[in-house]
Amino acid sequence: MDTNSFRPEHADGLDPATRALTERRSAVLGGSYRLFYRRPVHLVRGEGQYLFDADGTKYLDMYNNVASLGHCHPAVVEAVTRQMQLLNTHTRYLHEGILDYTDDLLTTFPALPTGEWKAMYMCTGSEANDLALRVAKAWSGGEGFIATTEAYHGTSELTSGVSPALGSGQPIAPTARLVPAPDVYRTGIDPARIGAWFADRVRAAIGDLEARGTKLAAFIADSVFSSDGVLPAPAGYLAEAVDVVRAAGGVFIADEVQPGFARTGEEFWGFARHGIVPDLVTLGKPMGNGIPVSGMVARDEVLAAFSDRIPYFNTFGGNPVSMAAAQAVLTTVRAEGLQAHARAVGSAMRSELDGLKERHDAVGDVRGAGLFTGLELVTDPATREPDRDLALAVLEELRDRGVLTSVAGPHGNVLKLRPPLAFQAADTDWLVGALDASLTALGR
Amino acid sequence: MDTNSFRPEHADGLDPATRALTERRSAVLGGSYRLFYRRPVHLVRGEGQYLFDADGTKYLDMYNNVASLGHCHPAVVEAVTRQMQLLNTHTRYLHEGILDYTDDLLTTFPALPTGEWKAMYMCTGSEANDLALRVAKAWSGGEGFIATTEAYHGTSELTSGVSPALGSGQPIAPTARLVPAPDVYRTGIDPARIGAWFADRVRAAIGDLEARGTKLAAFIADSVFSSDGVLPAPAGYLAEAVDVVRAAGGVFIADEVQPGFARTGEEFWGFARHGIVPDLVTLGKPMGNGIPVSGMVARDEVLAAFSDRIPYFNTFGGNPVSMAAAQAVLTTVRAEGLQAHARAVGSAMRSELDGLKERHDAVGDVRGAGLFTGLELVTDPATREPDRDLALAVLEELRDRGVLTSVAGPHGNVLKLRPPLAFQAADTDWLVGALDASLTALGR
Repeated sequence: MDTNSFRPEHADGLDPATRALTERRSAVLGGSYRLFYRRPVHLVRGEGQYLFDADGTKYLDMYNNVASLGHCHPAVVEAVTRQMQLLNTHTRYLHEGILDYTDDLLTTFPALPTGEWKAMYMCTGSEANDLALRVAKAWSGGEGFIATTEAYHGTSELTSGVSPALGSGQPIAPTARLVPAPDVYRTGIDPARIGAWFADRVRAAIGDLEARGTKLAAFIADSVFSSDGVLPAPAGYLAEAVDVVRAAGGVFIADEVQPGFARTGEEFWGFARHGIVPDLVTLGKPMGNGIPVSGMVARDEVLAAFSDRIPYFNTFGGNPVSMAAAQAVLTTVRAEGLQAHARAVGSAMRSELDGLKERHDAVGDVRGAGLFTGLELVTDPATREPDRDLALAVLEELRDRGVLTSVAGPHGNVLKLRPPLAFQAADTDWLVGALDASLTALGR
Repeated sequence: MDTNSFRPEHADGLDPATRALTERRSAVLGGSYRLFYRRPVHLVRGEGQYLFDADGTKYLDMYNNVASLGHCHPAVVEAVTRQMQLLNTHTRYLHEGILDYTDDLLTTFPALPTGEWKAMYMCTGSEANDLALRVAKAWSGGEGFIATTEAYHGTSELTSGVSPALGSGQPIAPTARLVPAPDVYRTGIDPARIGAWFADRVRAAIGDLEARGTKLAAFIADSVFSSDGVLPAPAGYLAEAVDVVRAAGGVFIADEVQPGFARTGEEFWGFARHGIVPDLVTLGKPMGNGIPVSGMVARDEVLAAFSDRIPYFNTFGGNPVSMAAAQAVLTTVRAEGLQAHARAVGSAMRSELDGLKERHDAVGDVRGAGLFTGLELVTDPATREPDRDLALAVLEELRDRGVLTSVAGPHGNVLKLRPPLAFQAADTDWLVGALDASLTALGR
């Protein structure tokens, strides 16, 4: 859903420099490009959890999980610079970088005998998910996919077909079925029952596919359900659905592009919070702190059904420079204790945000894990009716107070608070103060 | 076609260090990964047109067009380092880098009124082609694709379906039709007639699609037909087929991942050699000299049919660091006069290679444009029968003489000579000498 967007009719209110840049964009960039905000932000510098615009204004970045260690983290800059000066070529020659990184990456995975996890590297999350869906088809012999009703898994033809978040213009694949996300707040279902409720939906979708002669290939999900509105709790609820998928001969693809790399604080991977060992795991955004790198980790037996028949070569995937960036990220997450940090500072931040409920009826729910938080804005906490207009107005107010973020969820009313892991306890004051002031300014 | 590959049975002949690396690869990397050579090369350093292995052995790189300016070119290293220290974020904020680059890029395109060319950025050639094929479907209302019998256009589900070079395990899309490539040498057709001959094949494919109720969406081709065996001549032969495609309501997608960015010497783009103005142009490999960046340039009217309905956001695509790398490439190609250089040095190299025919009957044909050359190995120049076994043996002999390259074409018998544009006249001696000695050593 594309809601937080600059549109041509906003141009009149812009300063001449910003307006000139928006006009240059419309002249030469494709119409699919969208800018955030009615008054777009012209960024020139980033450092840690902060961004700076052309006028020197400082922003608190509550949105960008790609620069996960913090913008321009020196460990990544140094590793990439060093490797760029030395060698950057492809995986048809031997190089230790890809092997050292893979060994290290697999230590973060559930322990399986050596050779049971196999890694492959690409450049984007879309490429990782596209390959995972193809592998799932090869292994299962099926064509059917299940995703959630507001899921986003990529921009390729195949992944777009399981990405309803792209909007009504994007057709859903005829072999795909959508299930409602496990939303405790909005369904009102007992948290202890949400896993069974969700598994029932998945079971029904499989039945619907089978009734039309389509065998299940895969259930694909981001285990914090970011696009569906940030639905991390209670940890564990996903396991029952995965059992249902496997019983039907399908695989579970854990799309870790959002929850992976220590973001949730509780575990290094989102799937681990649910006690699941996936068949295929896809990695993306934060993996290289901004250098394009993505990956797929698969069970050997599942992957072999594909790789025995079809070669796969990704020119830039797994190159020494991308691997150097990825290694620097993994090393720094450990060296700076970012997983424990995300857990502690995220939890403290949510306590403060919870406090806003007392002064602002519009704050319906605050939920999250680690540094991934959803804050739901409603017309009234009793009815829980989503207030999308308010959410959009709050985004603009926050922007004016130097806090950058965006919205998620089927109703576009959930503030998605997903800062670099460099976010500090002291930043909470800025965030909570700006939110408090924004709601007050809007009379809510 | 995957021919130049290490296989487990080659392991016995390896030194312990190389063997250990191949074993580490099999343990943790997916089985789709392939290594070049029976004795794989363990590279640790690159500089200009040269690569160096762990033992300090120097190689002449005749294969890697990604490091197009030369390995580790300081202009790219500096531009990327500088931008990485400053800011790396996405296209939903304003940034001048993407606009300056696009303006500069479009000066290399056929002149159209401002706004008639629109650019979008991704990370890989596969992503660019996947999007181009989707745009073609949206604009034409058709589903049919035409590609050549040994084409390679990418690794996504959609692009794999028009990439028969992936081998018999990869299904061709039911809506795709394959046409033989315009191969003057192997068909024996008069060069003046090859354009009409090829247009007839395309016309027949369109007829076959229409007979099955499938409307044409696009004809996609790399205008040097790299995977089909390097078929650049005579320039201009592609125009008639493109007219046929347009008359049937389809678009022409110029896949410039191979011939683009001055490689052919004669023009900056491969399509320009044929006097064509394409509907969609896809850019990749050499665009960032190794930093993952790709792009699609489209006619506004064609792209609008897609972008009016469907949002497209590529997280890493068009980010300031990728754009800095791409800008450094464009600037350096001009500053170092690499297009004229490619033309002169490539032409001189082919004269020397032609001279080998006098001493070696196995050299059946030498053809190319700029620094893109195909050298065809045959059992006998009269029969022109392809000699694939010889080609594979020559690759290994060349490797032992420090020259790295690989093979292409439906018969796997065409040496693909595609060095960084940093290749110099003096390197021709090494290449030609090594080839001469390799053929002699093999008794040919």
